[in-house]
Amino acid sequence: MFKKILIANRGEIALRVIWACKELGIKTVAVYSEADRLSLHRRFADEDVCIGPAPSNQSYLNIPSIISAAEITGAEAIHPGYGFLSENAHFIEVAQSCKLQFIGPETHAIRTMGNKAMARDTMNAAGVPILPGSDGPISDVTAAKKLADEIGYPVIVKASSGGGGRGMRVVNKADELVDAVNLARSEAEIAFGDSDVYIEKYLTNPRHIEIQVLADHFGHVIHLGERECSIQRRHQKIIEEAPSPVITEEMRQKMGLAAVEAARAVNYRGAGTVEFLYNEDGTFYFMEMNTRIQVEHGITELVTGLDLVKWQIRIAAGEKLSIQQSDVVMTGHAVECRLNAEHPETFRPSPGLIEHFHLPGGPGVRVDSAAYAGYRVPPNYDSMIGKLMTHGADRAEAVSRMKRALGLTVIEGIDTNISLHTRIMDDPFFLKGDMSTRFMEQFFARQSKPE
Amino acid sequence: MFKKILIANRGEIALRVIWACKELGIKTVAVYSEADRLSLHRRFADEDVCIGPAPSNQSYLNIPSIISAAEITGAEAIHPGYGFLSENAHFIEVAQSCKLQFIGPETHAIRTMGNKAMARDTMNAAGVPILPGSDGPISDVTAAKKLADEIGYPVIVKASSGGGGRGMRVVNKADELVDAVNLARSEAEIAFGDSDVYIEKYLTNPRHIEIQVLADHFGHVIHLGERECSIQRRHQKIIEEAPSPVITEEMRQKMGLAAVEAARAVNYRGAGTVEFLYNEDGTFYFMEMNTRIQVEHGITELVTGLDLVKWQIRIAAGEKLSIQQSDVVMTGHAVECRLNAEHPETFRPSPGLIEHFHLPGGPGVRVDSAAYAGYRVPPNYDSMIGKLMTHGADRAEAVSRMKRALGLTVIEGIDTNISLHTRIMDDPFFLKGDMSTRFMEQFFARQSKPE
Repeated sequence: MFKKILIANRGEIALRVIWACKELGIKTVAVYSEADRLSLHRRFADEDVCIGPAPSNQSYLNIPSIISAAEITGAEAIHPGYGFLSENAHFIEVAQSCKLQFIGPETHAIRTMGNKAMARDTMNAAGVPILPGSDGPISDVTAAKKLADEIGYPVIVKASSGGGGRGMRVVNKADELVDAVNLARSEAEIAFGDSDVYIEKYLTNPRHIEIQVLADHFGHVIHLGERECSIQRRHQKIIEEAPSPVITEEMRQKMGLAAVEAARAVNYRGAGTVEFLYNEDGTFYFMEMNTRIQVEHGITELVTGLDLVKWQIRIAAGEKLSIQQSDVVMTGHAVECRLNAEHPETFRPSPGLIEHFHLPGGPGVRVDSAAYAGYRVPPNYDSMIGKLMTHGADRAEAVSRMKRALGLTVIEGIDTNISLHTRIMDDPFFLKGDMSTRFMEQFFARQSKPE
Repeated sequence: MFKKILIANRGEIALRVIWACKELGIKTVAVYSEADRLSLHRRFADEDVCIGPAPSNQSYLNIPSIISAAEITGAEAIHPGYGFLSENAHFIEVAQSCKLQFIGPETHAIRTMGNKAMARDTMNAAGVPILPGSDGPISDVTAAKKLADEIGYPVIVKASSGGGGRGMRVVNKADELVDAVNLARSEAEIAFGDSDVYIEKYLTNPRHIEIQVLADHFGHVIHLGERECSIQRRHQKIIEEAPSPVITEEMRQKMGLAAVEAARAVNYRGAGTVEFLYNEDGTFYFMEMNTRIQVEHGITELVTGLDLVKWQIRIAAGEKLSIQQSDVVMTGHAVECRLNAEHPETFRPSPGLIEHFHLPGGPGVRVDSAAYAGYRVPPNYDSMIGKLMTHGADRAEAVSRMKRALGLTVIEGIDTNISLHTRIMDDPFFLKGDMSTRFMEQFFARQSKPE
């Protein structure tokens, strides 16, 4: 086992890794930016090194600084957390060239999954369902029409170089296709200087459902069931739960098997997440694989009783994954609300001094947070200041615990999204488990209507 | 179900009851003394009533004030927590005469278990093992000798009116008995004006092991396994764990059955605890029954996944206990450390202002505390300011989590016993699970010796 690990991250995930290291008897090195001088991850690590000014490219993304910090302190391994350098293959290569073990998968898996086209091809070859669509850009409208007929409407026309919704057209029936392709092409030409477009099946109300996997060096891969992550604001998850209210045990095994095949196809190692779009008819399609620990890993820990971060470290140290698929039992139900320092409706970030701070405890409540009374939330980073998780015997108990936990949380001095979470916990659609990735849009529409 | 409950307590247990009420959708009324104006139980209840000055007999023990508070606010039931009026049969009678439901057992159970002689007789009749001894005071030394021979040495001679160790003699062999009885008699005469003594079997190294029971109005009684509570300072538990490191599944069923019989014998209702002395040879003896929720109930919640306080309320509201004995499954291992505002070695209370306060979260950590940064611990009450609990897949994981949780707890401005807990978590005897009620005495002896 490692004797000392450097944690190349900040905030709650840096603390989370420190917790795991302490339990494993491993010394920790925190790195911190000048904006994070008073952060708890610095305080609670055994050693700490300042790696530069607040902007991330000068500190948390500054590869030479981080590698130097590891070398100076004699760390043997680096845990990247999520975000920042966690999926940066170049960083891993630099670390490895300096004889530092990276706690995560190999660069091949990261590179394959990091490229949409390569990931799609690899998954297709591995038999993991992918969204039906064109292989690369469509050549002409006749070919487009033929393909769309095969796929079935609705389809979506997307700019190959696109992003941000531009050069994108949803097509509901065949006679709209030609116009849509032409419009998308010209929009794409103007926006990206590239008129290439491709066609994909369009899911009108998909859920975002993801499967947690664990894999070791010896080819042993298991899945830990799913997380329902459909509730997102601006494509960022804000509420997650495990299990999903709509996934049956049979479907869990089916999606779990697909996720295990996805991980096997890239020779995956460590903890990873395979994200799927799940259709109401029970079909599901590979979206992407996150080759790192995720923000929402804690709810899987609550329902499985397994410690994912300790397993990441054990696996990186070469330990065999001693858990068999049949050992994985999901008990009860868990919900997570991400506590963000932001306006609950406009989502405008709200950095500043936390004057009063109290997070509730008691049965079935887990808090992962690096905030405290007197902490100043810096303006430089993501607005998430903590994660409130609850676990109950069933979904109703987990939700009732979340409601009381949110109601008893005190964070004063900055705006937070607690009131938004509270309203969602009372929303009849949420309570029925009726949700898709369009949940927030529909929720706000419901809220603005008079009753 | 009740619409509104008054909580006749303070501190973390008042908060604990508020949590349960919120989850059940029940409104809460907090009562508080003048010393508790800034307490969280007041802040988080739906309504609050000041019931008098700091001394308990003028507030938390002031029956007319509490009953008035319930009447004024329209509460239908009273949750007594632990301590204060929780085992006061008179209080229950007053409450009932005012049409207030008491959340706890009936007065008969409380009165029987509150009287040592009655409890002993009742348990004996119910077939629950009691410590062999004389039925009341011994008449003369010949009878004493005969009885001691029957019981087997060592025995203890105790003053009937005794307490605090006076008039008490441990007798290891027969030829010491006459002198011991005579000495105990004269000590007792001097100390208590009553020379009556009785004889009981003396256990040299017993463990304190207790069984949690739940019983409803319909005669259905189950047990939720044991808690090991041998680690005590001045007869007060400071560290508890569930399950006990020495109790086998077979023994658990045996002790569980005895506890269920004990509860049945007094027609018990609600949550209660049957405390046993457990001998290294596998024999165990009834000590007493606590007819209320206990401080350490949370570790049973962690290993069983059941919410005891919600069950107390449901049962008091007349609900059937829907859990069968076979539904009760203990998962993993849980440890509790009581965080006291006191000097870690002298146990001198340390009230005052908490300047900095941070309790750790993360996987397997539960915190029940009413303290916060800026809270002033009043000098008037028990020194316990919170409970830190950890849960792991096994004892080793639960203990490693407790170590890291203690290490990352920040309570500044007052003395706490955190450093004592940390040292105990490193103690080789504790780590082996080798403990008895003499643990603390032996621990301090080990610590004072040079290695």
